[in-house]
Amino acid sequence: MNNPFFKNFGPFKLPDIINSDIEYSSLSVDLTEANELIYDVKNLNDARSKDITFFHSIKYKDLAMNTKAYACVTKNEFLDYLPDDCIKISCDNVLLVTAKITAKFYPDSISDDDNHVLFNIDEKFKDTISGKNTFVGSNVTIGINTKIGHNTIIENNVKIGNNCSIGSNVIIRNSIIEDNVHILDSAIVGKKGFGFIPNNFKNFRYPHVGYVHIKKNSEIGCCSIIDRGSLSVTVIGENTYLDNQVHIAHNVKIGNNCIIAAQVGIAGSSTLGNNVMIGGQVGISGHLKIGSNVQIGGGSGVVKDISDNSKVMGYPARDFRKFLRENKSK
Amino acid sequence: MNNPFFKNFGPFKLPDIINSDIEYSSLSVDLTEANELIYDVKNLNDARSKDITFFHSIKYKDLAMNTKAYACVTKNEFLDYLPDDCIKISCDNVLLVTAKITAKFYPDSISDDDNHVLFNIDEKFKDTISGKNTFVGSNVTIGINTKIGHNTIIENNVKIGNNCSIGSNVIIRNSIIEDNVHILDSAIVGKKGFGFIPNNFKNFRYPHVGYVHIKKNSEIGCCSIIDRGSLSVTVIGENTYLDNQVHIAHNVKIGNNCIIAAQVGIAGSSTLGNNVMIGGQVGISGHLKIGSNVQIGGGSGVVKDISDNSKVMGYPARDFRKFLRENKSK
Amino acid sequence: MNNPFFKNFGPFKLPDIINSDIEYSSLSVDLTEANELIYDVKNLNDARSKDITFFHSIKYKDLAMNTKAYACVTKNEFLDYLPDDCIKISCDNVLLVTAKITAKFYPDSISDDDNHVLFNIDEKFKDTISGKNTFVGSNVTIGINTKIGHNTIIENNVKIGNNCSIGSNVIIRNSIIEDNVHILDSAIVGKKGFGFIPNNFKNFRYPHVGYVHIKKNSEIGCCSIIDRGSLSVTVIGENTYLDNQVHIAHNVKIGNNCIIAAQVGIAGSSTLGNNVMIGGQVGISGHLKIGSNVQIGGGSGVVKDISDNSKVMGYPARDFRKFLRENKSK
Repeated sequence: MNNPFFKNFGPFKLPDIINSDIEYSSLSVDLTEANELIYDVKNLNDARSKDITFFHSIKYKDLAMNTKAYACVTKNEFLDYLPDDCIKISCDNVLLVTAKITAKFYPDSISDDDNHVLFNIDEKFKDTISGKNTFVGSNVTIGINTKIGHNTIIENNVKIGNNCSIGSNVIIRNSIIEDNVHILDSAIVGKKGFGFIPNNFKNFRYPHVGYVHIKKNSEIGCCSIIDRGSLSVTVIGENTYLDNQVHIAHNVKIGNNCIIAAQVGIAGSSTLGNNVMIGGQVGISGHLKIGSNVQIGGGSGVVKDISDNSKVMGYPARDFRKFLRENKSK
Repeated sequence: MNNPFFKNFGPFKLPDIINSDIEYSSLSVDLTEANELIYDVKNLNDARSKDITFFHSIKYKDLAMNTKAYACVTKNEFLDYLPDDCIKISCDNVLLVTAKITAKFYPDSISDDDNHVLFNIDEKFKDTISGKNTFVGSNVTIGINTKIGHNTIIENNVKIGNNCSIGSNVIIRNSIIEDNVHILDSAIVGKKGFGFIPNNFKNFRYPHVGYVHIKKNSEIGCCSIIDRGSLSVTVIGENTYLDNQVHIAHNVKIGNNCIIAAQVGIAGSSTLGNNVMIGGQVGISGHLKIGSNVQIGGGSGVVKDISDNSKVMGYPARDFRKFLRENKSK
Repeated sequence: MNNPFFKNFGPFKLPDIINSDIEYSSLSVDLTEANELIYDVKNLNDARSKDITFFHSIKYKDLAMNTKAYACVTKNEFLDYLPDDCIKISCDNVLLVTAKITAKFYPDSISDDDNHVLFNIDEKFKDTISGKNTFVGSNVTIGINTKIGHNTIIENNVKIGNNCSIGSNVIIRNSIIEDNVHILDSAIVGKKGFGFIPNNFKNFRYPHVGYVHIKKNSEIGCCSIIDRGSLSVTVIGENTYLDNQVHIAHNVKIGNNCIIAAQVGIAGSSTLGNNVMIGGQVGISGHLKIGSNVQIGGGSGVVKDISDNSKVMGYPARDFRKFLRENKSK
């Protein structure tokens, strides 16, 4: 992902990044000799030869072995997985160090509280049909024949397509919204996710430099919330409908033609295929892979991956017929 | 239900209704001879001799056998249940065809995004005590001694009784609210329900021509959402209290003196009797019948009908003592 | 708790309190002789010699035996637990009588609908960085370097510390917010709780004279709701983070360094220790005690106390390893 929205304050040389605030245990290079410019911080998959990356879980060892990154933040015990020519920064708390480095590149991404300069939408978008007290920030575009309700705040970094319908009391920031999308009243799209490094006395907020991408023909229900990604994108696929009070955490990717009923919650970084149907109040844990054509019965709690074409129900979610059989007498 | 709010663009003759956009397999009459005017689209129960209706599930065969409707949209295999003199429109997707016919009668009911002409409440209702930035649309009445908060949008087609209290950031449309009702901050009442005909590439939104009826002395909690009915009414009974973040889907009917705790979700078309007590986070599936004097323990998932005077808990919900016994050792 | 926010209309003498609206069965003193002034209504623990209290559940008999209160509302069968010199007011519905007495002392605490006089924040707080259409009521203080978003309503009785960040569409009343707290978009803090005495035809709303106290460095997620206490305080500890759509009921007390994921609901009067981690969609029943260093798996339903250092999951929640073992084959 090339960041479309947040200003990248780089490039920096490694000695500028590894400053006094970074607690590391070892470094595979002499800092004074690390003179290359580093342009961005990216995950193992996306990092190129002028980027810095991080490797914090053994789950990602295959990606680590093939990373092209110039430097990598990792733990002592993972050092051997990384390519020889990758500079290794070993530390105890990989995510904390990565968060601090990300904050150096993207200082504007840590909180959402600096967007106080807004304009009345009528001043900026004379052709948009909009209601009372609706305001827009900077770096906003709105397509033709798009309607916007009342008391809605479209903050910075928002691209809205044609023929969209945005309700009242909606808040949108850092989002790309394609054509013919309906976002209903009081939805919140593009806020920073619930990501931080726990620390007694004062947690360290993780920067969220990602954005939300809602593809065409989709609908987001009332009071539903879609958080933007940390280092990647939160995606709602084409023609995917979310009912009211749904929570979509950062980095989640949902496919096309999905139907998600009210009060569903999907935790961070999980991915869903196409044609997934999810009943009301379902919870899906983080970092899971839900296949295509999956049906999940209402109230289920999903704690492991689900393969294509499965029908599951229960807490924890299991094969639907098994759930029925176990509960036949109840 | 005679529609109090949405403009009926009928009557139409059958040849005007069965146009090129309607995919049907057979018709029990010669279109050129069907010259009677059709005044409304209604469900099997409510349709009279100048209405068109639909019959999509075998569950409703008794109603179908006795329908008085002039014409009926149905499946091939259900044709024999309908009276001889009822014109039969046979098709593969009954709900899609019905949705398209409903959209012809009520084109304004498909989306909620055409209510951009609002007035400052002080201009229209000089005697109502209200806060900052509160606006009203057309066809709105407000009783005496009713108070309204800040940033609240009362869109079109709303009747509010006497001695009501409406909070801040509330959105209301297409609703009848009786006397002494409290609607707390950020509640959303009367939006269209989550109803559509799934279709790859682009779902077809089902028209919602119904409304919400909140009876006297009730309370609706913060961020709770009550969707209006599709072809019928969503009802909150007298003296029924909803806590925060509750979701009430379209066509749900709740009786009197019910207590519904926070984060409960009730799916479409379910009905509840009187004196029902529901604990926090309970989910109730659609099209169920919950009796009177029922108690449902917190966190339960209700997937079948519950008879009067029952006490249930669990997922799926079952007799309360049974739930306790099964979980005694846990 | 000395009430910092609601005006106490007392003191009153007992004959002024026990008026025609109070249904009692017996009184341990001759009303005409009860001439002492009563200054406040408090719970058994906090009541002093010039206060009136109430005793409605055998669970509190030890507190009742040692109460210093001048008078106590209770049931006939509990009379013997109370000290000899405490005036005893015996009745069938202890909470209803207590609610009526509390309403006499604090008539402003029953509903939240009397706060219609607001000022544009720029008029009152010239140094606060704030957005569009943000208003404040009376008895509000805001610290330095605190930022506030758009369409936010800070009603009466709010104290906000330094370096705080308050989002857009937020509603706050009756709350003390310490330094460096982040309250995200559309959160609602300090509204009256879901407390009332059920009564056919018309419930009796319980006064909520308490407030919300959010300690320093905490974060409250989008659309999360924190209700104020009835006779006590609702507390969010230091450095405690709540994700989106969380519901915290009246009188709940949460310790320091807790992490509470999205869509969690905590019912009234439960207390949590420090360093508690709660997964998404967890429900916690009312009046429970959750210890410190507790971990609760996502989707759990907690129906009994949890001791320090426990890890639980399930519905009902039980030891985590037990839950895993029971569900191994699923």
